[in-house]
Amino acid sequence: MAERPVLVSEVGPRDGLQSIRSVMPTERKLEWIMAEAAAGVREIEVGSFVPMKLLPQLADTDALVRFARTIPGLTVAVLVPNLRGAQAAVDAGAHKITLPCSVSETHSLRNVRQSHAQLLEGARAIAELLRAVPQERRPTFEASLSTAFGCTLEGPVQPDRVAGLAERLMATGCDEVGLADTSGYADPAAVRRLIRLVRSVVGNDALTGIHLHNTRGLGLANVLAGLEEGITTFDSSLAGLGGCPFAPGASGNIVTEDLCFMLEAMGIETGVDLEALLRVRGILSRALPGEPLYGFTAEAGLPLGFSGLSRAGSTESRRKSR
Amino acid sequence: MAERPVLVSEVGPRDGLQSIRSVMPTERKLEWIMAEAAAGVREIEVGSFVPMKLLPQLADTDALVRFARTIPGLTVAVLVPNLRGAQAAVDAGAHKITLPCSVSETHSLRNVRQSHAQLLEGARAIAELLRAVPQERRPTFEASLSTAFGCTLEGPVQPDRVAGLAERLMATGCDEVGLADTSGYADPAAVRRLIRLVRSVVGNDALTGIHLHNTRGLGLANVLAGLEEGITTFDSSLAGLGGCPFAPGASGNIVTEDLCFMLEAMGIETGVDLEALLRVRGILSRALPGEPLYGFTAEAGLPLGFSGLSRAGSTESRRKSR
Repeated sequence: MAERPVLVSEVGPRDGLQSIRSVMPTERKLEWIMAEAAAGVREIEVGSFVPMKLLPQLADTDALVRFARTIPGLTVAVLVPNLRGAQAAVDAGAHKITLPCSVSETHSLRNVRQSHAQLLEGARAIAELLRAVPQERRPTFEASLSTAFGCTLEGPVQPDRVAGLAERLMATGCDEVGLADTSGYADPAAVRRLIRLVRSVVGNDALTGIHLHNTRGLGLANVLAGLEEGITTFDSSLAGLGGCPFAPGASGNIVTEDLCFMLEAMGIETGVDLEALLRVRGILSRALPGEPLYGFTAEAGLPLGFSGLSRAGSTESRRKSR
Repeated sequence: MAERPVLVSEVGPRDGLQSIRSVMPTERKLEWIMAEAAAGVREIEVGSFVPMKLLPQLADTDALVRFARTIPGLTVAVLVPNLRGAQAAVDAGAHKITLPCSVSETHSLRNVRQSHAQLLEGARAIAELLRAVPQERRPTFEASLSTAFGCTLEGPVQPDRVAGLAERLMATGCDEVGLADTSGYADPAAVRRLIRLVRSVVGNDALTGIHLHNTRGLGLANVLAGLEEGITTFDSSLAGLGGCPFAPGASGNIVTEDLCFMLEAMGIETGVDLEALLRVRGILSRALPGEPLYGFTAEAGLPLGFSGLSRAGSTESRRKSR
């Protein structure tokens, strides 16, 4: 299991910022994105192409995508709620677009005001749009199955419904599906079961990413279960910023710093320099005064004698110190 | 992996209370122990037979052991630092005694003022004492390998030193050894490696328990790794109370409520009624005003439609709701 490449996908500038009242100035967002990319994070979801009146916090998404794509080696991801958003993402030059598709139809209607039929129609239209985009500018298209493990409005979500929606979404022309534990209902056994079930329907290559929250403290245990099932992309948010505004009580994303610490401690290279990553929190605390920042590793500090894998020349020193 | 019996061992009345300044009145401790046993927790470490001047918070350990052993079905555990403590534990009627043995000799000298040679001599004396106790009153004797994953004073701890000390402790006549991540240095890969290594030396039956902290947020991920290696006893503390006073920055034990939630959600029966367990927190907040209580599950509440396995008649309803 160790030594496989794992991608930590930072979603704080989107999932984090959309959940708080404070509006982060664009310059501070740029500073954050640059600093986190410099710390070694290779994918960042920089915003969401939703109508400005719904999420004024993310109104600068176009500018952020255009800027972020100039950072060498960074995959620039963006959330899109519909065809119009996808067009904007293509125009701005995003590398990856994610369409949220809630398995709980109640949640879908509340979150993006769309039934499953409408969602599927939207996905089909986006896939059609993307087919007309030249290969080199065509973003990867992921449909994210939110509330896949349960919903604060509907309660338990049947795994068969997740697999069924995944199959129908892939049929519209998505490149891949992701599983999202929007409300923190997942547990390690459910993570394993659902990954296996969905992969049995869409194939292994069409499910490589998972979006976990830490609502009931199980976030990193769920990551471990995902790792063991061969998941290679894990979403997380710096300082645990965020959550889902339509899932009451759903505390935030798993914490990027803690996720990277766990992976690096396990010998799984993330490319992220942990000390540099921890310093990026300073940008958040300065730009978002009064917003709580989370994370155990930041509070406790790195262990005495710990060197992550992902620091220049550190593999040798870490081997010595173990 | 699921459906194996797993024992959640509550250590809050010892590890939690020894780490805070407030002294909990004996009647409130009795109320706590009774309520948690009534919620289904089957093992509780009620105190420590250390000199009163060192830990006045635990000065009533003798009374607590004598009371707790009258609770039907409850295994009453107690920490002992030496032969004198072991004698007191036997006299009071404890079912299980744990001798802390720090793999980091620096930590051992600071924590219990003993070298490894002294620790081993102490373990030998305790084993000899226990051999003279009639079978029906003889407590199980566990040596707990603290700082097994790393030490805030020494840094990394070599796994070979853990295995070597485990072997020498078993040779003194202990019934079993446990692994303790005193300072929150463990990660899931290290948990797996160390369990396998120590078991290769002492045998599978002599290592069944692990004591994890959540210092860097990896506590439950480490539990999952332990589960997968066949560990069956997990220490935890209600509301995450506690930590190690000699490990600066080491935040508390894993949270009993979150641990039980994870296990029950995974389909692993704990015997613990989660709603009843969550209500026990009220005893702590009333008895320890101003002390922070931790735990994600308590903050978020149980998921909508969630029924634990361990409630009367709940297995059926849970199957329906999944």
